[in-house]
Amino acid sequence: MLDSKDINKYVEGLGSSSKKASEVLASISTKDKNSAIGFIADEINIRKKEILKANSQDLVEASKKGISDSLVDRLELNDERIDTILLGLSRIKELPDPVGEITTLPPTPSGIRVSQIRVPLGVIGIIYESRPNVTVDASALCLKAGNACILKGGAESIKSNIELMKCIKEGLSKADIPEDSINLIETVNRKAVNYLLSLEDHIDLIIPRGGKSLVEIINKTTNISVLKHLEGICHVFVDKEADLVKARSIAFNAKTYRYGICGSMETLLLHETIANQFLPEISLKFQEKGVELRGCKKTSQIVDVKRASQEDWSTEYLGPILSIRVVKSIDSAIDHINAFGSSHSDSIVTEDKGRAKLFINKVDSSSVMHNLPTCWADGFEYGLGAEIGISTDKLHARGPVALKGLTCQKYIVEGDAELRGVK
Amino acid sequence: MLDSKDINKYVEGLGSSSKKASEVLASISTKDKNSAIGFIADEINIRKKEILKANSQDLVEASKKGISDSLVDRLELNDERIDTILLGLSRIKELPDPVGEITTLPPTPSGIRVSQIRVPLGVIGIIYESRPNVTVDASALCLKAGNACILKGGAESIKSNIELMKCIKEGLSKADIPEDSINLIETVNRKAVNYLLSLEDHIDLIIPRGGKSLVEIINKTTNISVLKHLEGICHVFVDKEADLVKARSIAFNAKTYRYGICGSMETLLLHETIANQFLPEISLKFQEKGVELRGCKKTSQIVDVKRASQEDWSTEYLGPILSIRVVKSIDSAIDHINAFGSSHSDSIVTEDKGRAKLFINKVDSSSVMHNLPTCWADGFEYGLGAEIGISTDKLHARGPVALKGLTCQKYIVEGDAELRGVK
Repeated sequence: MLDSKDINKYVEGLGSSSKKASEVLASISTKDKNSAIGFIADEINIRKKEILKANSQDLVEASKKGISDSLVDRLELNDERIDTILLGLSRIKELPDPVGEITTLPPTPSGIRVSQIRVPLGVIGIIYESRPNVTVDASALCLKAGNACILKGGAESIKSNIELMKCIKEGLSKADIPEDSINLIETVNRKAVNYLLSLEDHIDLIIPRGGKSLVEIINKTTNISVLKHLEGICHVFVDKEADLVKARSIAFNAKTYRYGICGSMETLLLHETIANQFLPEISLKFQEKGVELRGCKKTSQIVDVKRASQEDWSTEYLGPILSIRVVKSIDSAIDHINAFGSSHSDSIVTEDKGRAKLFINKVDSSSVMHNLPTCWADGFEYGLGAEIGISTDKLHARGPVALKGLTCQKYIVEGDAELRGVK
Repeated sequence: MLDSKDINKYVEGLGSSSKKASEVLASISTKDKNSAIGFIADEINIRKKEILKANSQDLVEASKKGISDSLVDRLELNDERIDTILLGLSRIKELPDPVGEITTLPPTPSGIRVSQIRVPLGVIGIIYESRPNVTVDASALCLKAGNACILKGGAESIKSNIELMKCIKEGLSKADIPEDSINLIETVNRKAVNYLLSLEDHIDLIIPRGGKSLVEIINKTTNISVLKHLEGICHVFVDKEADLVKARSIAFNAKTYRYGICGSMETLLLHETIANQFLPEISLKFQEKGVELRGCKKTSQIVDVKRASQEDWSTEYLGPILSIRVVKSIDSAIDHINAFGSSHSDSIVTEDKGRAKLFINKVDSSSVMHNLPTCWADGFEYGLGAEIGISTDKLHARGPVALKGLTCQKYIVEGDAELRGVK
């Protein structure tokens, strides 16, 4: 085990070698980046046995520590999950490379020529929990956008991650790309994270992938920019002009597609005009599925449900619980969402286009939806090819973040010795 | 004087009323925003006498406190400067409104329709020093981009700012736009700034306009996103393939156009092949202008200059001092800039397009220039119409930030009850 001083030195070393690698990486061709991604996939295929073995060691350790079933589920790799990782790589390979894209600005009065070129951000630090697939996904996305990255996975998946990183390094090496382009912090000591968060000179962006508390702690700890994905308290509002058949299937899908994803609906808002007609059938459907319902006073007068507390309106359950509130008007629904939501994804069900437009304009969320379940909130489903996270922040990138969000634009200004302030 | 508790209450009040105003402001038409800007200009014209009177009171106070000449210069308003403020307003009025711009994304496999709409950020906090013109410029830029703002000017300009804010509030009121859209913190108590920086729930972006230390302190103090303009350590590199006549005028203009602007050249880099030929004439020109030269060893062997210390390479002089370094190659120049520069604006002078391209690709700065003095770095000169600052950060907006940088995009996702994971 490394002591504090050695850990700092080790992480600092990763920081400075990543920075150097990022300078090379910025001008590597799309073809070379793609072939590296291909080689990484080949290596994972070749070393599948070793990866699964390391993963089963992680699983044994985890079960010794009495880690929760859901954590074990996220930690586990198997043939099918490796295939999903490989499919992910081949998709990222096919994505268009955003780096080098030029935007020419209109002519200026002085005659200087201004354009913008899309460039990588530099070095990205990614801090995540159990799921080992993130090791590969995140590496490939950063690489494709021309960024070096430093990964810090959870202690419980360290053996799996080390094995996957061998494949990544081998893939980079085969494509003649600096191996320092992708790095794993190979210690479970938590001090490594704190030191990583202090490397302002080496790291351009921190992406925490985990719960709200992880993101908040990281954001308070570091001066480096953080891609903040705080939580998904998503709403579906069934308007008085809704088609109630559509509304039922949308509400049911929004909650039950997967309980654990951030786009899952946590609160169902119902216009009071349709509540009586809508509630009995949908609540039966949810109860049959095992979803616990917690309703406002009006809801509880229509169907037999537990009463929701004030806290329920701002809770991300990430499980089979749903809060339901009857509201007087579309404005009350919008106010509820802007007050209690998390600016993630919110949807209106209505056949009235004017009312849909009002909702879309007034709801201040990264995705506003019309006649759709909120569980669609996903970079791949939006056609971005993949995602590195969903930003609930307004700056830089909002909503699902893919390759473009891992780049920025710099100005190119060209002239022929035009001078300023000289006639 | 308000005590601590009252100040918190006062600033909190401004925060929540700004947030409410921002919700209204987000859907106000371009026409109405423009007419508000016009009314503000009218009011400034009408109340010019009162503004100049308040400003002269600020100047008297400042001289009592023995404030530096350069601060007094920045604080002073006169007829000409008021005209410049009015010209700025009419320019901002003419700028195209970025809000509402729609980007349609390609069709998705599932059939859901994805687009992005440009929306205001919400509430912007602006912390600045002496110059009262910022009060008007920043207000109008925020307003045009649909954002509410809270301004905290320097203590020395409080009377001028209060007078200008009267005109702004009157202009808003005449255009039927909530007066709380633009607010000035009307106390000189520094605690107000700290409290402002804690209003995460009300403020979406902080823009500090001032020295590096102000920006650094603010960035460390707040969890709100900060538009970071740290410093401008800008370089001109005269390449071996440069036209030396052009190079001389570019280098001279880059330093002497205005010493105090962030785009001013602080270090001149010379390819060793041209140093002998280039240095004598340019150093004479600089010395005649009163610019103190500090050179590397090689420079001092060619012309009679003071020796530069290691510290000089990372110093933003903002005054008539220039450091000069002779380098072995274009790569050494690039390395010097990436190591000692501030990622602001850097220029190469060369007639060789390939070498210009290499420089443009490898220099990691918000503006990279070819055959131009760095003092062109300015939003207005780039054709953006105006600027609220120059970002040395890579996230969100890099380089001069104008209206677009004061907005973000949210996703609009539309469908007809398409369900996820259901065939």
